[in-house]
Amino acid sequence: MQRTLVKDALNATASSNAILLQGWVRTRRDAKAFSFIELNDGSCLKGMQVIVDATLPDYGNVAQANTGASIEVHGKLVESKGGGQKWEVVAEKFTVLGEADNTYPLQKKGHSLEFLREIAHLRPRSNLFGAVFRVRSRLAYAVHQFFQERSFHYVHTPIVTASDAEGAGDMFRVTSLDLANPPKTADGKGVDNAQDFFGKKTFLTVSGQLEAEIFASALSNVYTFGPTFRAENSNTSRHAAEFWMIEPEVAFCDLNGNMDLAEAFVKHLIRDAKEHCAADLEFFGKFVDKDLLARLDFVLEKPFVRCSYTEAVTILEQSGKTWEHPVAWGANLQAEHERFLTEEHFKCPVTVYNYPRAIKAFYMRQTDGTAEGRETVAAMDLLVPGIGEIIGGSQREERLDKLRAGMALHQLNEKDYWWYLDLRRYGTVPHAGFGLGFERMLMFVTGVANIRDVIPFARTPGTADF
Amino acid sequence: MQRTLVKDALNATASSNAILLQGWVRTRRDAKAFSFIELNDGSCLKGMQVIVDATLPDYGNVAQANTGASIEVHGKLVESKGGGQKWEVVAEKFTVLGEADNTYPLQKKGHSLEFLREIAHLRPRSNLFGAVFRVRSRLAYAVHQFFQERSFHYVHTPIVTASDAEGAGDMFRVTSLDLANPPKTADGKGVDNAQDFFGKKTFLTVSGQLEAEIFASALSNVYTFGPTFRAENSNTSRHAAEFWMIEPEVAFCDLNGNMDLAEAFVKHLIRDAKEHCAADLEFFGKFVDKDLLARLDFVLEKPFVRCSYTEAVTILEQSGKTWEHPVAWGANLQAEHERFLTEEHFKCPVTVYNYPRAIKAFYMRQTDGTAEGRETVAAMDLLVPGIGEIIGGSQREERLDKLRAGMALHQLNEKDYWWYLDLRRYGTVPHAGFGLGFERMLMFVTGVANIRDVIPFARTPGTADF
Repeated sequence: MQRTLVKDALNATASSNAILLQGWVRTRRDAKAFSFIELNDGSCLKGMQVIVDATLPDYGNVAQANTGASIEVHGKLVESKGGGQKWEVVAEKFTVLGEADNTYPLQKKGHSLEFLREIAHLRPRSNLFGAVFRVRSRLAYAVHQFFQERSFHYVHTPIVTASDAEGAGDMFRVTSLDLANPPKTADGKGVDNAQDFFGKKTFLTVSGQLEAEIFASALSNVYTFGPTFRAENSNTSRHAAEFWMIEPEVAFCDLNGNMDLAEAFVKHLIRDAKEHCAADLEFFGKFVDKDLLARLDFVLEKPFVRCSYTEAVTILEQSGKTWEHPVAWGANLQAEHERFLTEEHFKCPVTVYNYPRAIKAFYMRQTDGTAEGRETVAAMDLLVPGIGEIIGGSQREERLDKLRAGMALHQLNEKDYWWYLDLRRYGTVPHAGFGLGFERMLMFVTGVANIRDVIPFARTPGTADF
Repeated sequence: MQRTLVKDALNATASSNAILLQGWVRTRRDAKAFSFIELNDGSCLKGMQVIVDATLPDYGNVAQANTGASIEVHGKLVESKGGGQKWEVVAEKFTVLGEADNTYPLQKKGHSLEFLREIAHLRPRSNLFGAVFRVRSRLAYAVHQFFQERSFHYVHTPIVTASDAEGAGDMFRVTSLDLANPPKTADGKGVDNAQDFFGKKTFLTVSGQLEAEIFASALSNVYTFGPTFRAENSNTSRHAAEFWMIEPEVAFCDLNGNMDLAEAFVKHLIRDAKEHCAADLEFFGKFVDKDLLARLDFVLEKPFVRCSYTEAVTILEQSGKTWEHPVAWGANLQAEHERFLTEEHFKCPVTVYNYPRAIKAFYMRQTDGTAEGRETVAAMDLLVPGIGEIIGGSQREERLDKLRAGMALHQLNEKDYWWYLDLRRYGTVPHAGFGLGFERMLMFVTGVANIRDVIPFARTPGTADF
């Protein structure tokens, strides 16, 4: 007999004479004449209430159906007599497939998030993490739907790379050499990297952008969605050494088109989560962050304001606020500034654009006609309440001479970027793109405050368990 | 004015007074009174024919519109007078955005695949690689659609791992230590891995299966789709050091259910490619592999035969063939055996199941009631013509005592798998899954013979360019 998922059973339109449910016991309550069992199979937040009558020949099995045990129930789907649910299942055959004794760590509620990280192999069975990882799966799909329906092509940019995309951060080394006894160069001093697997030093990628530009220069509209890495020793609630990033890259697109795309993308993801993960979001709103649903609606319904960096600095200077980090043209905006702009000043999501050239990456397009000392590039950051920057992007420098000047300014070696320069030598086009950290978006959509709790198995300094 | 993609213009249902195309020049032919330009924007295989009349004020720009140059055309979509296409565009405004001089490497046709790998930053602009990467993008989406529509949850299993999934092959080391001067242990002899970023030795994953089993034990139906790595020094047309793999894992599923899923999955991907990439597949059938389309239909239309390993050995022994690799119960099937079964004996796709225990991984479920010396496990390999094995999978050993015995047989340390064993201690369920190498599937669907040509930037021994 075909299994029915709890999610489908709960949405049934009619009772059924025969149904097969399989899942895990969340709770069991024994009364005199029957037992109530809440069966959860992870297909949705809610479980199905199963009633096992004491007169059932299998009733003896119920004693083994402790919290965490896996069970199989053949029965009938009937209208529930109690409140709180429409349907319940009356068992006709009841089997315990796998027991869970009283050492099962998830028996009692109220475990700390820290403890649950230590049992990351069991935490997806909890309400909170079941919900987080259902939303993660759904939003990953929504990412693909958004781009595929707009004729974007998905590109798998390389994970192992010999180039440092933008000097964006410390990189992990990838090697097949024996660290205890690496081959030496002829002078006996250094490591002979030519003997490594790829014939040179290789690293884990920090961004697929430059390679995505290659594909945008051929297929026009592309996006990446893959793991990226930072070997930064920062033990914060917002940094992980391994995280997933989405990077669209669009040919024949300028900064305005890029802002349009980024805003539509963020709204699409929120709308999709509301539509497909309503029960899970409601759970987060109740138990994780009371303001969550209002904040999501805020971003969905409010128009996005666009404000140049220079305007933003003026607003911050004239705000009368005392800042921990001083505000000055030429300095980066800090989280406190970003949150002020979106939460207090504009009271809506804000896209800040045209940042000082000196503080941004070499590949960003120099804004035409900006004064010396106040040169800007066509960069943009999308700010949302509660989080601050959620997307960063730019129009790319498509002019060969200007790109070379940018590389010189940032002290990069042209030889390392010969193919990137080629894109400007042959049929160069205006193009733009951005990056969205998938986990940051998940934190925004779920209200979960620590990045470790929206990744199946977090990799952070000192931690690579499971 | 909004850009129109060539693919949408070619499928237009009516002529238009105003259209904006942007793309790259594939060919240009100058006649006396006008020039013909084939504009390609990567949205589809075919380009749009653009006619620039010599009386146009912009006609002078045409001289710069060499192969590879990027152009922008404002014009009218009109019915084509020539054969071969329904629509063409009569230019009203013609602009060259980025020139390409005669050093542009893709000017002439007939470059070798080897040469094109050296210019992997330009090859997506060719017909062949444009088609390959459109199919790659589409099939990646089809993977997600297949599983999401069946209520599977997508799981991002970790890329950096401290565990070796199955001793499946040589692994790359991931480290932030200085290879030239790594910290030493107290005795001064070994490397002090405790000082590495994650506090221990870490590697690039070879499979997400074991972690997927964690999630199947909570969300029931899950799949992974991510990069995996092998540090094997094999320079063949079928091996890459970095490749993408899809690994579904299904709770409450046995080997038969697993075979059903694998067969439906393969058919879905082929059907999807035929439906959404018809022109690209036609191109492959014409220029890459004349038998391609027949082979795809073969897999789509033929029933899949299921044949036990023991039956397969008997068939091979009785075939009267001379084998390069001897056939004997207990030995692995080789490519020549697999291809004989699917191409010559059964003449249809074949799923071989129940393999000798000794040659398979520790986590595979021991088949009940098999005789000593002929013990088998519930493993399966799906074989297709031209390729041989395209999917490998198994029902997993869900019984704690049997799993421990399997680990002992394979000389694995239980301490390294404490969490994997926990899945059998708490609410264990029958479950099964398989792995599909995405590039192998792409080779099958496109007919492209070398794995280096279905990956954007291949990583192979000695090669990590771009």
